[in-house]
Amino acid sequence: MPPFLSGSSDAGADAYARAGVDLAARNAYVEELKRITRTSRPEVLSEVGMFAALWRLAGYRDPVLAASTDGVGTKIRIAQIMGRYDTIGQDLVNHCVNDILTTGAEPLFMLDYIGTSDLPMEQKVDVVAGMKQACTAAGCELVGGETADMPDIYGSGDFDLVGFIVGVVEREDVISPARVQAGDALLALPSNGLQTNGYSLVRRIFGIGVGGDAAADRAALDTYHEELGATLGEALLAIHPPYLAALRPVLKRLHGVAHITGGGIIDNVPRMLPEGLAARLDAGSWNVLPIFRLIQERGDISDFDMYHTFNMGLGMVIAVDPREADAIMAAMPGAMRVGVVERQRDERRVIVA
Amino acid sequence: MPPFLSGSSDAGADAYARAGVDLAARNAYVEELKRITRTSRPEVLSEVGMFAALWRLAGYRDPVLAASTDGVGTKIRIAQIMGRYDTIGQDLVNHCVNDILTTGAEPLFMLDYIGTSDLPMEQKVDVVAGMKQACTAAGCELVGGETADMPDIYGSGDFDLVGFIVGVVEREDVISPARVQAGDALLALPSNGLQTNGYSLVRRIFGIGVGGDAAADRAALDTYHEELGATLGEALLAIHPPYLAALRPVLKRLHGVAHITGGGIIDNVPRMLPEGLAARLDAGSWNVLPIFRLIQERGDISDFDMYHTFNMGLGMVIAVDPREADAIMAAMPGAMRVGVVERQRDERRVIVA
Repeated sequence: MPPFLSGSSDAGADAYARAGVDLAARNAYVEELKRITRTSRPEVLSEVGMFAALWRLAGYRDPVLAASTDGVGTKIRIAQIMGRYDTIGQDLVNHCVNDILTTGAEPLFMLDYIGTSDLPMEQKVDVVAGMKQACTAAGCELVGGETADMPDIYGSGDFDLVGFIVGVVEREDVISPARVQAGDALLALPSNGLQTNGYSLVRRIFGIGVGGDAAADRAALDTYHEELGATLGEALLAIHPPYLAALRPVLKRLHGVAHITGGGIIDNVPRMLPEGLAARLDAGSWNVLPIFRLIQERGDISDFDMYHTFNMGLGMVIAVDPREADAIMAAMPGAMRVGVVERQRDERRVIVA
Repeated sequence: MPPFLSGSSDAGADAYARAGVDLAARNAYVEELKRITRTSRPEVLSEVGMFAALWRLAGYRDPVLAASTDGVGTKIRIAQIMGRYDTIGQDLVNHCVNDILTTGAEPLFMLDYIGTSDLPMEQKVDVVAGMKQACTAAGCELVGGETADMPDIYGSGDFDLVGFIVGVVEREDVISPARVQAGDALLALPSNGLQTNGYSLVRRIFGIGVGGDAAADRAALDTYHEELGATLGEALLAIHPPYLAALRPVLKRLHGVAHITGGGIIDNVPRMLPEGLAARLDAGSWNVLPIFRLIQERGDISDFDMYHTFNMGLGMVIAVDPREADAIMAAMPGAMRVGVVERQRDERRVIVA
């Protein structure tokens, strides 16, 4: 076997390009990623190109790591049709940040995975730049990731996007269901739309991205709806907000935090409750966003199904000592008082009345 | 708005089932996952159902977290055609374990992501059971994950599988390129096949899972090849081995560790080297596996492209002090001496001669 060269990706591109995996383009992409994902926190010990990200964990007495993984569901399809690739990375990071925030954790670092067959470099870079922007806003670092070329698994222009987050919380500050008690007040921070859940249902209802005509998909999303004050596409692409800044000042005083994601209010609020307790929400205490009214009407969906699928306007639901409720609300701009924790009387763990 | 019930997934299934997301089936799946992924390490503080996994990190002086994410590429397509779903979860975990092992880290926990549209529960459970099995073998815990129903993104029966791993290493024991010196001996541990890379190319060469006839795909994989001593499918599904047990006893004595993944020997060996050093591998010092000879011949692929795509029989390449090489080899069953680290003389960082 003759000696040969490494370092030039061109030389090796032929065989793999045949297989739909262009190594030269891949190297250009990696260079661009290096540029936009430069880290600044001193805890990052790894360099780009290593097989793993390294994070020095110092300064904690009894650290507990909080980790979560999530995607953005088929909100990806809406982004594709709209030709917007800079917001879903933010959706992904904010979703992950909010998930670990429910345990009281501050985010440390994220890794991402993009699976695709032929998504152009420019659009992949937009996705990653969005992630980087949201990470910086949350004070965490995007330390690594994987972009997998998967011809035959993903259709042309299709991709999936997955985030992994690690945060940390002192053991004594971990928020867990054991803290929540009957009589606790329920507060909430508002959502600004679907966040990252319910998109498959909505696409079915409006016939968007379900195998039909591309022009019709785009026209449906470009339709202005008076009640939304926006086009449907704009309303559906609203960026999943991060709740870290709002909750951070009061985090140690919270009894329970639920992030309202897939499964809506019905499935997610009980995740912060211990056995035997239920949440009673006052349906008149918050503004159900117009996008949900539009979806319910167009889809002829029952109230139960709506609350079992969507956040209905509540981004985070929070249990606090009722004596502290006013003070905590005052410290959380936009917070609403939406209900109370009570003993569970029947099979219901969430009552909206 | 009338009071309504939570806790019964049947009531809410209608609307979402229309969208291809069956919440009742989803709940049954979650129950099955709980059963097979029960954890035993005391560091796990989270319970199933929380928004994040919690891991207490205690007993380290100056801990550095090592994190990585990866997929298994289109090995997934081979598994689908073969109808085997119990091995790719092992591939995924072992790949991740090996990635962080290059930094000297022991694995703590994993999270997984499965994106699919309609993969049956039984097959998803097989995938997760495989992950659990490999995690247990590596002494780490599968603490969480996400299974995303993504109608219209994944084709029928298609899915993607992503793993996220966190491990830990004492700061003074971190293996990084700074340790590797000219004159270091290069050892290697053998691979048993493609591990998790190069499958798109191989599928193109053999015409498998590239849009053709399902029966023909299956027949190609069921073909027995004398030189492999196995069917093509069996050879291609060989489980990516974990190298943790082999390396653990000598980990602190290693200067550099490269996991030979996507980009093959050419791209991966330099990842453990500092600037200015190159690896010289003796092509006659190890057995190029028959599967690679078959691929090269059928695909009419150059030597360079083969070494730039595949591991060619080397699972891990390891740099050690030459005075310690014999002792370290003796402690690593199966290890081979394959080359030496030298000063870089031209643009080549890997020379196979």
